[in-house]
Amino acid sequence: MQIGMMGLGRMGANMVRRLLKGGHECVVFDINPANVAALVAEGATGATSMEDFASKLTKPACAWLMLPAAITGQNVDKLAALMAPGDIIIDGGNSYYHDDVDKAEQLRAKGIDYVDVGTSGGVWGLERGYCLMIGGPEKAVRHLDPVFATLAPGGNPLDIEAPSEALKTAQFGYLHCGPTGAGHFVKMVHNGIEYGMMAAYAEGMNILKAANAGKKTRDVDAETSPLPTPQYYQFDIDMAAVSEVWRHGSVISSWLLDLTADALKQDPELASYGGRVSDSGEGRWTLKAAIDTGVPTPVLSSAVFQRFSSQGESLYADKLLSAMRFAFGGHHEKPKSDAGMKPA
Amino acid sequence: MQIGMMGLGRMGANMVRRLLKGGHECVVFDINPANVAALVAEGATGATSMEDFASKLTKPACAWLMLPAAITGQNVDKLAALMAPGDIIIDGGNSYYHDDVDKAEQLRAKGIDYVDVGTSGGVWGLERGYCLMIGGPEKAVRHLDPVFATLAPGGNPLDIEAPSEALKTAQFGYLHCGPTGAGHFVKMVHNGIEYGMMAAYAEGMNILKAANAGKKTRDVDAETSPLPTPQYYQFDIDMAAVSEVWRHGSVISSWLLDLTADALKQDPELASYGGRVSDSGEGRWTLKAAIDTGVPTPVLSSAVFQRFSSQGESLYADKLLSAMRFAFGGHHEKPKSDAGMKPA
Amino acid sequence: MQIGMMGLGRMGANMVRRLLKGGHECVVFDINPANVAALVAEGATGATSMEDFASKLTKPACAWLMLPAAITGQNVDKLAALMAPGDIIIDGGNSYYHDDVDKAEQLRAKGIDYVDVGTSGGVWGLERGYCLMIGGPEKAVRHLDPVFATLAPGGNPLDIEAPSEALKTAQFGYLHCGPTGAGHFVKMVHNGIEYGMMAAYAEGMNILKAANAGKKTRDVDAETSPLPTPQYYQFDIDMAAVSEVWRHGSVISSWLLDLTADALKQDPELASYGGRVSDSGEGRWTLKAAIDTGVPTPVLSSAVFQRFSSQGESLYADKLLSAMRFAFGGHHEKPKSDAGMKPA
Amino acid sequence: MQIGMMGLGRMGANMVRRLLKGGHECVVFDINPANVAALVAEGATGATSMEDFASKLTKPACAWLMLPAAITGQNVDKLAALMAPGDIIIDGGNSYYHDDVDKAEQLRAKGIDYVDVGTSGGVWGLERGYCLMIGGPEKAVRHLDPVFATLAPGGNPLDIEAPSEALKTAQFGYLHCGPTGAGHFVKMVHNGIEYGMMAAYAEGMNILKAANAGKKTRDVDAETSPLPTPQYYQFDIDMAAVSEVWRHGSVISSWLLDLTADALKQDPELASYGGRVSDSGEGRWTLKAAIDTGVPTPVLSSAVFQRFSSQGESLYADKLLSAMRFAFGGHHEKPKSDAGMKPA
Repeated sequence: MQIGMMGLGRMGANMVRRLLKGGHECVVFDINPANVAALVAEGATGATSMEDFASKLTKPACAWLMLPAAITGQNVDKLAALMAPGDIIIDGGNSYYHDDVDKAEQLRAKGIDYVDVGTSGGVWGLERGYCLMIGGPEKAVRHLDPVFATLAPGGNPLDIEAPSEALKTAQFGYLHCGPTGAGHFVKMVHNGIEYGMMAAYAEGMNILKAANAGKKTRDVDAETSPLPTPQYYQFDIDMAAVSEVWRHGSVISSWLLDLTADALKQDPELASYGGRVSDSGEGRWTLKAAIDTGVPTPVLSSAVFQRFSSQGESLYADKLLSAMRFAFGGHHEKPKSDAGMKPA
Repeated sequence: MQIGMMGLGRMGANMVRRLLKGGHECVVFDINPANVAALVAEGATGATSMEDFASKLTKPACAWLMLPAAITGQNVDKLAALMAPGDIIIDGGNSYYHDDVDKAEQLRAKGIDYVDVGTSGGVWGLERGYCLMIGGPEKAVRHLDPVFATLAPGGNPLDIEAPSEALKTAQFGYLHCGPTGAGHFVKMVHNGIEYGMMAAYAEGMNILKAANAGKKTRDVDAETSPLPTPQYYQFDIDMAAVSEVWRHGSVISSWLLDLTADALKQDPELASYGGRVSDSGEGRWTLKAAIDTGVPTPVLSSAVFQRFSSQGESLYADKLLSAMRFAFGGHHEKPKSDAGMKPA
Repeated sequence: MQIGMMGLGRMGANMVRRLLKGGHECVVFDINPANVAALVAEGATGATSMEDFASKLTKPACAWLMLPAAITGQNVDKLAALMAPGDIIIDGGNSYYHDDVDKAEQLRAKGIDYVDVGTSGGVWGLERGYCLMIGGPEKAVRHLDPVFATLAPGGNPLDIEAPSEALKTAQFGYLHCGPTGAGHFVKMVHNGIEYGMMAAYAEGMNILKAANAGKKTRDVDAETSPLPTPQYYQFDIDMAAVSEVWRHGSVISSWLLDLTADALKQDPELASYGGRVSDSGEGRWTLKAAIDTGVPTPVLSSAVFQRFSSQGESLYADKLLSAMRFAFGGHHEKPKSDAGMKPA
Repeated sequence: MQIGMMGLGRMGANMVRRLLKGGHECVVFDINPANVAALVAEGATGATSMEDFASKLTKPACAWLMLPAAITGQNVDKLAALMAPGDIIIDGGNSYYHDDVDKAEQLRAKGIDYVDVGTSGGVWGLERGYCLMIGGPEKAVRHLDPVFATLAPGGNPLDIEAPSEALKTAQFGYLHCGPTGAGHFVKMVHNGIEYGMMAAYAEGMNILKAANAGKKTRDVDAETSPLPTPQYYQFDIDMAAVSEVWRHGSVISSWLLDLTADALKQDPELASYGGRVSDSGEGRWTLKAAIDTGVPTPVLSSAVFQRFSSQGESLYADKLLSAMRFAFGGHHEKPKSDAGMKPA
């Protein structure tokens, strides 16, 4: 079927490639003409303006926006002004689901269906297929089924007796999760879980890294907690090999572990990374949803907060602790660069 | 090669089956003669006593113990008394690695090599193979290589140019992690990570479950925090379908997610579970190792503590909070069974 | 000076009493005439309607609202319609500071000053005085100084050489924190800290309570983690006495500890409490502010989430953990009522 | 009464001063003769060796050791060899209570009573008195009552009708908590709570510090989460004044807050602190006790882990997160020194 794609960054462009390969007709537009030209060379139909883009879409027009969340709203508004009742706009970016809920209500008055799609798969999606979490009106989502089926990983369906309709497409990697907003809601929680899983691996491997603590000398002073049983911390763990062995038959095998094992093979000491870990909106939004609904999320929040700390945002709190310790106990802090350990 | 297996519970028996299938000769012993008989019927050589077991092992004797951690030590001692220098004892149970470090030193004086093996794979190991994390003297571990290769998942090696020796076997699912104790140390951390990952999924899906909070009426009183924006919590999420779709192309795909999706297909409301989550020693030991070595583990500890809470161990703390709230604010707590919500 | 008070619940009525005692003239109004009558009997001037209330205020009219957050906004609007430029409205309830920021901007157009006051002190404020955290325009706050000075604890100022203007009033227990909204912002964070402190005491005392764990027999099964060193858990701690001794000279002495010690003297086993701990909006808002600004708050969030758990909101997550454990390990959970322990 | 004090560091020396002032006879010893001489000048009886120290104690000899935990055990052994049945040794240092339990059993065979005393009050104890948490045999503790009464804050007893024996002394600031080890156990938990309270203040005040985030410009890129509502983060909070106002009538008033307010008056930006926060053994031991007994301590553990992070121990974990993010999403981390914000 025909589908319009607006926003040809890495994600948008790769989705077009996967759609073209799947036999779909793609009308493409981007503020950078070079991005348009590249895909035209691969078989897409190019557009030179939003008006041109809208005019090239056959009815009902289906336009997929793959834009940064910050500019999605204004572009949807401009595009909607060029569209007619029965047309469909799809927001495939990293939008906050609140915005989707609000925008859908606004467009409903115009008769335009607004569909939101959360996508996971990162830079690997072109090859592996994208996991698609979809929100929107039943009719519009059903109309777009061929597009979703192509973008998703696909593969052979599982042999489930009388699966639900939802489970059928879920097996292929796409799911209609509910009304508009439900797609990005599920994607938001997906990312919250991702933060927690990543932190679980990172904390565990940090312990493995410290398994040779007993071989190091420690400062002996009132500001350094002694290692009580050095004989139990004499292991020099091969991090790359451990992450590799866990990939084979262990309970914690996962795609994130596959990537971790690869990274450690390339750079066992992770010397090419500084350790300032950004966080995108989804992790924060996940916590806000948990707070609103009263759901305990100690693990997911710890993962988000650890990222804040890695960004240097604990500093003032830490200084307050030092100030209190000095005030009641006369404790002088040690220099930060030295964690109380040095090679023996 | 020949290997002795002592302790024929589910794990031990299935390991013998996998070894027999792999062409190894197995001498088996268990305090329950029926367990011995069952495996003899499948091709193993049975023993009627520990003495009989030891006498049937050809030199150097290799005896694998698959016993509960609590009785491993005493059985190792009894068996060691029947063995000779150069023999090998393997502890494949869920031992605390401290015990392995201590026991290895004790047996070293007798010339007996003590090897510890942490195994992951649960009840699926017979079919999938066991992920093996091994600690012990180089010579003994090398001697046992055929046994490890059979128990592990195996499969085709990855095409890595000049991999390390460790990475070679890791690709097949087994790894010599270091001296005795290193195997169970790595397995311990593996389980710590497992706790964190499980909690990440559970917390995230608990948020999904609450995504329809806006459809429910809430008590309006000073003891119930209002839901500020009910319009954003109108989703009835199909939990089985979401866990299924995430298996296909998403960043959080994993074997634990595969199992979760299966469980939710069988019992979407999880009505057959009460929610009292046990914790085995490994999670606790992981935290102790983190504390000893000064490694921050907010995610892994939150996961362990949530299990303690599920066991009812927060109750006294919660009562103290209620007592304080009553004391400073005159707040009366609401009955516990009603979480402030009911269907509209 | 003259001050109007609208909303004569426990907090509002006691504030009027403290103001009357301090020599101020109070005009009072409440939808319940009995509440008005009670204070008229103590010397206040009563009003029979909002119009009557507004008309009895001398210019510039100063009206303090002590209403539930949910109805504050609409009452401010009604009252503002009866007021003139230069008048002052004070929101002393538990409002979300966002609402104060928005309302101040709206009233600024009418020339009415909007002041927000967060108060702490609970049911003890009448006797101890209220700690007041104030936001609003400089002129209005300065005008209200006599009222704040009376409501606050007061007492002798500290002997600080050349303290700042802010420190001067802070010593008496009231502080102009910034523009409108700043008062409730600081109060919100105050409550966040309160949650964290309360949880610190509760968790610590829960450990003390468990100090006799070594005297109890534990189930011996694969689902119960053994107590490794029972000889170190043989203490029957007198909780009331410990909380009392900490009040005298220890680093953790505090007013919350004073209340805790009292509660434990009355009811050492806390049998009169069920342990379902409510949470008001401030704790949740504190976390949202931390998330917005990227400030790590692992302690404050753990305290809030523990309350959610006490309300039963962990149940679905816990069931998911049980389901996963059963799936990979065949683990059957134990009944929830039995935490693996019984008296020996 | 007569009491021997061994170990005349800041804590030990000040205790002697308080005891002398209280009319007790003190025999003092330290490996540094200057420390002995200083106290002899203030009225104490000096000793030149441990033998001399022991010989100067009248029967039953009462010797209080105020030594670093690491050397307490060996000194107790030496001293015990010089003592007779019925004598009393008091360990007042920061010992792990396990060591006290073990040592008491060992000395019981010799007829020597071993008493352990956890003390809180820091450098302020000389002036305020020390909060004393005591473990040991009933008879010995009762014999030492005059010493405890002098060291503790004392003051007027509360008017409690028929208080328990324990509550009587608790009102004066000392408590016999149970058999030997119970004193340091209660002190250990006290410090665990202290960590949690300190972190609660520090996290809350870190949010206050960030209350002007809306005034700063933020980087606009995919690696920086935007501040959604800058209008609500326009407050420049006077940290010293806020900590001061909370001291007067608020629910979170405490001695730690008193110290915090003082510190912020001296150095509002805390420029003299680097923020590397040490942790002593007690916090770690508290967590281990919680883990052993299955008590959930998410708040106390978060506080300890935040200290580990402040010591730089999160770095490897953070690098792993960066490595994973790069692997699945091609995300490049930002430089660590720039937290995404700069003054507008």
